[in-house]
Parts: sequence; C-alpha cells; structure tokens
Amino acid sequence: MTHLGARLTHIGPGRVHIVLPARPEVTQQHGYVHAGATSAIADSAGGYAALTLFDEDSEVRTVEYKINLLAPAGGDHLEAIGTVLKPGRTLTVCQLEVYGVQGDGARKLVANGQQTLIRVVRPGQ
Amino acid sequence: MTHLGARLTHIGPGRVHIVLPARPEVTQQHGYVHAGATSAIADSAGGYAALTLFDEDSEVRTVEYKINLLAPAGGDHLEAIGTVLKPGRTLTVCQLEVYGVQGDGARKLVANGQQTLIRVVRPGQ
Amino acid sequence: MTHLGARLTHIGPGRVHIVLPARPEVTQQHGYVHAGATSAIADSAGGYAALTLFDEDSEVRTVEYKINLLAPAGGDHLEAIGTVLKPGRTLTVCQLEVYGVQGDGARKLVANGQQTLIRVVRPGQ
Amino acid sequence: MTHLGARLTHIGPGRVHIVLPARPEVTQQHGYVHAGATSAIADSAGGYAALTLFDEDSEVRTVEYKINLLAPAGGDHLEAIGTVLKPGRTLTVCQLEVYGVQGDGARKLVANGQQTLIRVVRPGQ
Repeated sequence: MTHLGARLTHIGPGRVHIVLPARPEVTQQHGYVHAGATSAIADSAGGYAALTLFDEDSEVRTVEYKINLLAPAGGDHLEAIGTVLKPGRTLTVCQLEVYGVQGDGARKLVANGQQTLIRVVRPGQ
Repeated sequence: MTHLGARLTHIGPGRVHIVLPARPEVTQQHGYVHAGATSAIADSAGGYAALTLFDEDSEVRTVEYKINLLAPAGGDHLEAIGTVLKPGRTLTVCQLEVYGVQGDGARKLVANGQQTLIRVVRPGQ
Repeated sequence: MTHLGARLTHIGPGRVHIVLPARPEVTQQHGYVHAGATSAIADSAGGYAALTLFDEDSEVRTVEYKINLLAPAGGDHLEAIGTVLKPGRTLTVCQLEVYGVQGDGARKLVANGQQTLIRVVRPGQ
Repeated sequence: MTHLGARLTHIGPGRVHIVLPARPEVTQQHGYVHAGATSAIADSAGGYAALTLFDEDSEVRTVEYKINLLAPAGGDHLEAIGTVLKPGRTLTVCQLEVYGVQGDGARKLVANGQQTLIRVVRPGQ
C-alpha cells in the first residue's frame, strides 16, 4: 500500500476507508487509476475492515474476491471502503466499494466488489 | 421461478423483491432452502431489477454472478432483493441479497452477491 | 438434485460429473435449461468433487461461487463437471464447467465457474 | 505493468503469459508477492489474451474478475497465464492462472480466476 501511496483515513468496527491519490505512478495515459491499483486498495480496505473485529493475535488473509470495474477510475483521488457483511470465527465476508472523488468532493462509484477472508492465528502465538 | 413457487412482491425502478416460501420441494432434510434455489431467486431478482430500467423491447440476460452463502437459508420464507448498482446501455451491474425471514418478521442475511447483465433487443423487434 | 432430475455419472478423486436431462420442468420456452438449474448442477458437481477427497466424517459446504453463463444451455442434456483445483484441510477451490450435449454427442461449453468450499466435521462425530 | 516490473513472455491466439520477478518492490516482509500485484498481472494477462483475437481498432476493458488466492505467491518469479474460454463480439471470458516459479523451474498454482471483458472500438476510429 505504501508503494502505491495509499493511506488509511477511517478505521471503525467492521469498516475501513483507504484513500489513494491519483498520482502519475498509478495512473495510465488518460489520467485514470489503473484497475490493478483500484483492486488493490479495495482488497486492502476489506482486509483491514475484517481485522478491526479480531484480537491482536489474529491475521486475516484474502481467500478470494470479485470486483466489477464500473467506470473509469478518475478524479483527484480514489476512496476505497471495506465493510464487513458477515463476520465469522473462520470466514468473514466484506463488501468493497471504490469511489472516484473530485477536488470539489463530487463522488462516483467506480468499482464494487465482494470478498471472502480467513482468520489465521499469527504464527508463534 | 413458478416451478420453485417464487413470486414477485415488489417492483420499483432498479429494485425488485422475490419471495420464496420454504416448501418441502425446495428444502433439504434440515428444513433449509437449497443453495440452488437461493441462488436462483437472487439471480432472478437482479434480472428483473435491471429490466425495470429498460423499455419493453429490451431483454436482459445474466452474463455472470458471484454469490456468498453466508448462513443456512432458514425461516418461513426467503426474500431476495435485487438492486441496480450501475445501469448501462449494454451492461448493468446489480447487488443481490437474500434474507431468511421468520414467521414473526425477524430477518437474517443468508446470501449476498453481485451480478453482471447484458441488455439485448428482443428478436424480431 | 433429485427434484431437478439430475444424476451423478462419474465420481473420481477430485472430479465429479453430473448429468441433467433437458426436461420441460427445467427448460424455458425456447428449450434452454434455466440458468438456475445450470448453476445448481455446477455447484453440486464442485461440492461432490471436493467430498471425494475427504473421509466419511466430513461434509463440505459452498462458501461462494462465481459463474459465467457463456451461451444458451441447449442440447439433449447438460453435463456439469466439478474439478478440485486446490484441496485443503479447511478450504477447497473447484473449477466448474457445464457443457450442453447434443444427442449425437456434440458438446459446447455453456457455463464456467469457480467455487470455494469449506470442510466441516459432521455434527455428532 | 512497467511500474511493477512485469513483462510479456508469450503471446499466442487467445493466450498470453506475463512474468513478474519477485523484486522487493512487489513483495512483503515474508518474500511473497502482494495479492495486489498477483491480481494485477492476472487481470492483464486475460486482457492481452482477449486482445490477440481482435483487430487493431479494438480495445478491451475488464468488466469484472474474480480471483482465488490459493497459496502464498512465493518463488523466483510469478507467471500469469490468461486464456480465452469464450470469445465474443461484445463480451469475452478468460481463465486466469498465476504460478509461483522457483529458480529450478518448479511451479505451483498460487491464484486462479475468471474474468469478463468488453470489446470497445478505439475512440476516433
């Protein structure tokens, strides 16, 4: 995430926001953020959202996700929102949304997904 | 849908509800509705939700869907809700939710999905 | 599955075939098998394929699946093939294929999917 | 892709390979490639595989994909393989595989996915 220039902007129980500025490193020739970066922040937002529900000995790993790229990911920055739909001792399911946000705050849904995560106890604990 | 005993209970712009009573034909030995029937009403709810946004010469076909089966599909009946996330001239994306509803109205999310549909002009028109 | 008229036609380690005759109960007005029935046999084929790898105290449940409906599901019968891509003590991932098969044996891929299953130890054992 | 250090290593009709060396920029503390980079090369491999089937006025865009992360993405490099399952004038469906490859050539499937793409005619043509 650091490599992409993304940062966590909200952490609540079962919900996390990640912001990714539309810097040249993550955009293509038309100024839109690459699908790969869009997906990566969505996946991360879901993972952190799940993590908020577990104790510090737990890690979560993405089992799978599915994402629809709904519109070109334009704007000043992207905001990915991960929301836990169904927490579980073993498996957790999250909804993933990514918005393109303009400098004036106008928002557009650019990607929507769904993700399954597995909780694992950190090795050595 | 008729074969399963399902019926449309709500039709609004971009949103459709389908109810499936938990009859013996669609339940397994534990009284839960089969995953196949749960998925079928979710898929149909999304398809009809998309159809509400198009004129009468249009049909929609499911390109693909993904569904998480979150909990045993128990209750008096299931309610599937299809909601259009992103309409389009060619492709439409819907969110799919299925709730298990008890006789007293208590509801539980039993499945959640995401679906891509394509609009086609009805042959001969 | 019995309700749909489907039957297991091949069971090998990590691979199961299910055949569904195109009877009127599962076809629509154009003679194609409904997407719901196509998906149901795909999901079942994956579940049984996973089950072949575990001992008799184990059950498997579908966590989620994603399916692309590639072509109208026509023919004399459908054949669903579930193949384990990655077995696991907790989670197993399967590939799902459904072919439309003509009376003369000609085959066409009508649906393709991917499925995640979880192994559970049968209650009371 | 350039940003990640990936390169195309095979281009055939309906099939493309992409190799991503496991450089520090794309690996986490345990030496495994990040899920985001794994998914990005899988998505790209499918997109290029579809592109091989169309004329030079066509572009393809990812509509959606689903990916299972099957194992830690370790090895000397990753190889993503995109294969067209079903080409189409409007929509194309691809299978996505990612292997972790050791220095001695040993291979392990680390991710498997499925992708839907739409063909668009390049603006201005």
